[in-house]
Amino acid sequence: MSRRGLLALAGVGGAGAIAGVAAGLLSHDALAPATAPTPAEADVVPFHGSIQAGITTPAQDRLHMAAFDVTTDDRGALIRLLRDWTAAAEAMSQGRQTGTTGAADGPYDAPPEDTGEALGLSAAKLTVTFGFGAGLFEKDGKVRFGLEGRRPEALIDLPHFPGDDLQPNRSGGDIVVQACADDPQVAVHAIRNLARIGFGTVRVRWSQLGFGRTSSTSRSQQTPRNLFGFKDGTNNIKAEDTALLNEHVWAGAGSRPEEAWMQGGSYLVARRIRMHIEIWDRTSLREQEGLIGRTKSEGSPLSGGKEFSAPDFALKGKDGEPLIGMDAHVRMAHADQNDGVRMLRRGYNYTDGSDGLGHLDAGLFFVAFVRDPRTHYVPMQMAMAKQDTLAVEYLKHTGSALAAVPPGVQPGGYIGEGLFT
Amino acid sequence: MSRRGLLALAGVGGAGAIAGVAAGLLSHDALAPATAPTPAEADVVPFHGSIQAGITTPAQDRLHMAAFDVTTDDRGALIRLLRDWTAAAEAMSQGRQTGTTGAADGPYDAPPEDTGEALGLSAAKLTVTFGFGAGLFEKDGKVRFGLEGRRPEALIDLPHFPGDDLQPNRSGGDIVVQACADDPQVAVHAIRNLARIGFGTVRVRWSQLGFGRTSSTSRSQQTPRNLFGFKDGTNNIKAEDTALLNEHVWAGAGSRPEEAWMQGGSYLVARRIRMHIEIWDRTSLREQEGLIGRTKSEGSPLSGGKEFSAPDFALKGKDGEPLIGMDAHVRMAHADQNDGVRMLRRGYNYTDGSDGLGHLDAGLFFVAFVRDPRTHYVPMQMAMAKQDTLAVEYLKHTGSALAAVPPGVQPGGYIGEGLFT
Repeated sequence: MSRRGLLALAGVGGAGAIAGVAAGLLSHDALAPATAPTPAEADVVPFHGSIQAGITTPAQDRLHMAAFDVTTDDRGALIRLLRDWTAAAEAMSQGRQTGTTGAADGPYDAPPEDTGEALGLSAAKLTVTFGFGAGLFEKDGKVRFGLEGRRPEALIDLPHFPGDDLQPNRSGGDIVVQACADDPQVAVHAIRNLARIGFGTVRVRWSQLGFGRTSSTSRSQQTPRNLFGFKDGTNNIKAEDTALLNEHVWAGAGSRPEEAWMQGGSYLVARRIRMHIEIWDRTSLREQEGLIGRTKSEGSPLSGGKEFSAPDFALKGKDGEPLIGMDAHVRMAHADQNDGVRMLRRGYNYTDGSDGLGHLDAGLFFVAFVRDPRTHYVPMQMAMAKQDTLAVEYLKHTGSALAAVPPGVQPGGYIGEGLFT
Repeated sequence: MSRRGLLALAGVGGAGAIAGVAAGLLSHDALAPATAPTPAEADVVPFHGSIQAGITTPAQDRLHMAAFDVTTDDRGALIRLLRDWTAAAEAMSQGRQTGTTGAADGPYDAPPEDTGEALGLSAAKLTVTFGFGAGLFEKDGKVRFGLEGRRPEALIDLPHFPGDDLQPNRSGGDIVVQACADDPQVAVHAIRNLARIGFGTVRVRWSQLGFGRTSSTSRSQQTPRNLFGFKDGTNNIKAEDTALLNEHVWAGAGSRPEEAWMQGGSYLVARRIRMHIEIWDRTSLREQEGLIGRTKSEGSPLSGGKEFSAPDFALKGKDGEPLIGMDAHVRMAHADQNDGVRMLRRGYNYTDGSDGLGHLDAGLFFVAFVRDPRTHYVPMQMAMAKQDTLAVEYLKHTGSALAAVPPGVQPGGYIGEGLFT
């Protein structure tokens, strides 16, 4: 069933009815589906809920993430934008066009209310997830939008990590929007229409396309491979790990009443990590597996077992050395080495043309959702940037963003409204 | 069935047997399939044939195109590269890894023979199509590789078109490689492994990802939409149009015996066309449809009928003006306005981050295959660049390449071998 078919159906039963049938997979408070979903319904991820879609949603195949700078100082204009974006995100995620008349059926002498390139495509499991960067709260030393004291303490300015080579035009942003879908045209359409709706109020600061997911967020998914050719995210927190989500991903109410609006939200860390794939590709298989700490074919820990076997960091080989080296990535990134903290990763492979030096510009667009970046991202990244041979020799961080991701939206509400009330 | 499954099967029956079963759709001399292909076999496009795959192959969903500069002056090294690339392209298009041991099963103290990120993925209808730019024949006024007199006359230096804003790092290249697949990771893997194999002999000059196809090349496909939100390529030459292919797409033997190697080949024109989508999005639906000459919803000509109805350029409205305006894109691009010439288009939508001015950098990566660019591309593009309001006001060409695409490869041969014998 196409987007058009869905529209026709919506005309009969109301779009809400469709969304209701397709619900049940993703959010805390989901409805149980009355019947097995048909293929088109299975393409629709519910928008409303106590958490935003796009975090524990089974990771879709493609990403388009963008960061916007808010150019107005008018609090009312910002709230109108968030209301308009909420309505547009809800419509697009349900396979509808933005606005009331769409791309092709509106008044002929006005610009269309949708840009049209998703006409005829399915919703492709689109999710649109919003986060607020530090720049929304204060910029150039001035508090913005009357948000005095409302910036969460966890929304820090990330420190400089050794080896960082961050480009300003790939970093920061007042509002970060993650659009994920199984069809990239649907994800691009979503970001593009938000930019269109925000014209005059926001500017695109950076945007990043990810062509292949590098994490699974559900036990129903196979572990994908990154551009080092290795399985990535084997130990990721999955949607089914409710206790781990509560412990490591969902933000609490903070220490101050001014932060209560973030309860049930999360913090999004995005890092554009260039991989030196040409050097990697000339490294021996032994060296590659040693750096990762897993086999290339199956992703099994070098201490033995299969992909999901627990690594045994103490086990030594005949030579008396640990089978998983002291600087192997799997050891450095493991919870046991990081005070037990874990994250929900949701990254993507990227390729952005060439680097002007005869190589592809390619790597990993790292995305993670964590309860608090001060405990759940900074210490691990600092340790890896200093000691992990992989990070030191084969990776370069070229972009960075941190955003406070508010909880989900209920019908009639708008994204982040707790911040403005 | 996964790539691994396919490998296992190949071990029993030989990869050729699989390719044989899946053949029959694409090339001049295709075999009729003995039985309906299973899904995995349907994911494999035959590599060998009298024409290269990736021209009349039903347009796959995703593109990764790259241009390489050859850094050696050694004719033998160039021929070895072409042999190695041919073997790798054949393997990858059949769902196998490059080399004989692959990414994970080779000698542990050597770099893997494949980079590995396509392990477990299907062939995804991968095609790899090679073309030779003018720089392969001569550079800085010097003939290269002993190819004196072998540069086809049709492989011109494209003229400057009004409004061109070509970036050197997005233009030209000695060898252009088009990888198309339904899975972008498979297309990226193909280009990346060719770059790896060519290390020391070639440098990546530019590379371009296309996320959504904008043309159909088979009557079995629906017409997709470009980032103006309109259906694109309705009048494209399709694989089924054998007479039109012979007339407009397949190159002849040229006027000189030195060009006979191109018979059955074609010429690839690639143009990176930035679209000013923010301006477009603020244009009325009436203006948009007038500029295109078709309706936005269905793609029907403004003279009436349905998508595939022939446009009636003479038909006038009540106001005495032609229903399809004199500068409408459909009129300017139509064969009737261009001495009857047509092309096989194979372009893709692209989005490459932001432009630094608050907008998405997005547009159309135009790809066309033509018999002779002197007759089949330059006149039309010159006229459109001067007169087509769409082209003048909403488009900017930022990259350009022209390549002579040799005919297909037979088993045991290598790409372009007619040029070296």
